[in-house]
Amino acid sequence: MAVGHTHFPELMYAIQGLKIGTAQAHVRYPNRRDMVVFECAVGSSVAGVFTQNDFAAAPVQVCREHLKQNTPRFLVINTGNANAATGQQGLENSRKTCEKLAQLAGVASQAILPFSTGVIGEQLPIERVLDGVALAYQNAQQDKDPHQAWHDAASGIMTTDTIAKGASERIEIDGIAYHITGISKGAGMIYPNMATMLAFVATDFPIEQGFLQHILQCVVAQSFNRITVDGDTSTNDSCILMATGQAGGAVLQSEDDPRFATFYQALQKVMLRLAELIVRDGEGATKFIRVHVEGGKNTDECCAVAYSIAHSPLIKTALFASDPNWGRIVMAIGKAGVTDLDSQKVNIWLGDVQICRQGGVADDYTEEAGAKVMVQAEIDIRVDLGRGDAKDTVYTCDLSYEYVKINADYRS
Amino acid sequence: MAVGHTHFPELMYAIQGLKIGTAQAHVRYPNRRDMVVFECAVGSSVAGVFTQNDFAAAPVQVCREHLKQNTPRFLVINTGNANAATGQQGLENSRKTCEKLAQLAGVASQAILPFSTGVIGEQLPIERVLDGVALAYQNAQQDKDPHQAWHDAASGIMTTDTIAKGASERIEIDGIAYHITGISKGAGMIYPNMATMLAFVATDFPIEQGFLQHILQCVVAQSFNRITVDGDTSTNDSCILMATGQAGGAVLQSEDDPRFATFYQALQKVMLRLAELIVRDGEGATKFIRVHVEGGKNTDECCAVAYSIAHSPLIKTALFASDPNWGRIVMAIGKAGVTDLDSQKVNIWLGDVQICRQGGVADDYTEEAGAKVMVQAEIDIRVDLGRGDAKDTVYTCDLSYEYVKINADYRS
Repeated sequence: MAVGHTHFPELMYAIQGLKIGTAQAHVRYPNRRDMVVFECAVGSSVAGVFTQNDFAAAPVQVCREHLKQNTPRFLVINTGNANAATGQQGLENSRKTCEKLAQLAGVASQAILPFSTGVIGEQLPIERVLDGVALAYQNAQQDKDPHQAWHDAASGIMTTDTIAKGASERIEIDGIAYHITGISKGAGMIYPNMATMLAFVATDFPIEQGFLQHILQCVVAQSFNRITVDGDTSTNDSCILMATGQAGGAVLQSEDDPRFATFYQALQKVMLRLAELIVRDGEGATKFIRVHVEGGKNTDECCAVAYSIAHSPLIKTALFASDPNWGRIVMAIGKAGVTDLDSQKVNIWLGDVQICRQGGVADDYTEEAGAKVMVQAEIDIRVDLGRGDAKDTVYTCDLSYEYVKINADYRS
Repeated sequence: MAVGHTHFPELMYAIQGLKIGTAQAHVRYPNRRDMVVFECAVGSSVAGVFTQNDFAAAPVQVCREHLKQNTPRFLVINTGNANAATGQQGLENSRKTCEKLAQLAGVASQAILPFSTGVIGEQLPIERVLDGVALAYQNAQQDKDPHQAWHDAASGIMTTDTIAKGASERIEIDGIAYHITGISKGAGMIYPNMATMLAFVATDFPIEQGFLQHILQCVVAQSFNRITVDGDTSTNDSCILMATGQAGGAVLQSEDDPRFATFYQALQKVMLRLAELIVRDGEGATKFIRVHVEGGKNTDECCAVAYSIAHSPLIKTALFASDPNWGRIVMAIGKAGVTDLDSQKVNIWLGDVQICRQGGVADDYTEEAGAKVMVQAEIDIRVDLGRGDAKDTVYTCDLSYEYVKINADYRS
């Protein structure tokens, strides 16, 4: 059950020049949408970032190839099977999926980006996938309500997710209305490195291809690359940003453009929300946790400490139990590998309650005050390392019985 | 409930020149032994390795000081309170503990090494501890059965442990019988870096002080530094090796001594057994897992891959569920950060069953064969990286409901 404010937005703004189609391909389960096609109008820019896992899935490998050769026009996503660790046959299946859609749409196969999510280590049921591609492509050609279309797509990429995840923003610059709308999926195997599970975001802002890639990398670093559920990096992580440009205006090419800041801020809002939703829907999550680390010499060490806290099973179970067992936080800071950390300069807060002052328990700290923070569904842990001005934030969730149940009982 | 062969040895050989005393000090809980004193005869050598956690507990800091200044004659251990993250007062309490014992025994305070284990972040109940020191010292002066004395000490240092952990070996060289006997504790917060939780090992072999420290570091690297329960490094990890020399023979001073190999092998057996017992008693453990990684360019990358597997919550829950979800193993190998790993050269076995051949599912692999291995209480995971001759092994356990329960319900 997802934590806190997680509803699918009532307003999912349409992106001009973007079509969405979904279908039931029965990849793994019947009676559910498990196939999604995005179609970008001619002239769109598309940027992508992908997993750093050495066992990058077949579709990730094909995406990387195709992005080098052509400007993408279509994304095709199947759910239920990750097509990862599937060797040569996996690559062939991913290419066949692209060829099928290319034939139907009359474009080059390299204009298709394929994505898969689900079980690792099994071959795709390729006939059902190809049939699904055709159905989803046909569906994309039909006019539909944008909210419904995005919701269908968000549902169509869910695996162990319990909620469809979406975010949408509207900005106005020089009298032109621009929109950013996106969806994401993910609940387990979440510790993105360069990109997360799956996220597809589109805008009608006109943005030059190379600059779009730069923007995507910057915004992902502060959103999808700052979340963790279980410290496990998926083989299929992909985040795609599409810019159709159809709202009009000059093409955005650099940060010097006066419109950049407004656009970037709105994009950041969408991305951070989509990333946060993944943590709020973390497998078995009952708490949403922000780990803020400040006073570091650089952001790398702030992140190292934040992740050491966010990954500690002892802290995650204490959060689940609402136990202000702050000694475990001290342990996690100490094992983070910060060079020459002076433990006597470290301060720690749970919400507004200071629990540790200069390396020891704060004089005025009481268990009661700590417990009051710990029972909340959203908790801020703040650490001051007392050695510099850098700071960073990481988002995570607790570790519950339900996490064990989900991952022990189901093949996900 | 500990996994497999974990009984306390029927034979715990006496170490001449070593006295053991225990007492009930009511540090945290009544009606249990929670205070242990070891007394080494004059002329003993004592070596120690300690946690690398930046928040090293007060007793660890005092141990380091004292080891520089004096040859230790006594170890004093309290259970129930780790005296970690306790600032200046914690250091004073630790020193008071040493002074008390020094007074009673008529030795310098620097001849005492203090140890604490239990809850982090609370001050020691120092009066009760000092009374306990006196009782344990008196108890050490009484003659007793060595098996009973070691068992009492092993019980006296337990926290969330469910079993007392001991190991003992006897060797004969040049007609002289030598003995190595030791105990350890630990079940959670286990990912030792340089040493683990608490382990106290003694021998009557005569060994020169500097060489004893060298031997200890070598043997710990391949035993306590190769185990993990939850990837969390305790603030109190300490491993002590005492050599009374009272069995006789020349003092061992280097690896060139023809007696070295026999002694080292026996010591290794005791240390590995004590380390393995901690994993078998891992919090909530239902499975004991050996992760063997071979074919690496160096042992560092073998260990990185082995720990990536051993720390993955997704793999640990699949092991708990006896689910041969080998895609998760592939994921963990891929995220271990091995430079230029060629996934097409990777082979993986579960027990004797090859599940992955050259990066993809093995042709002859069946779920049934994988499941047969996974239901066993002891499982070997073997990975061949296909890029060199280095290999290493890491020991771990699964992640069960019980782990969450233990760490969510109890303040440990």
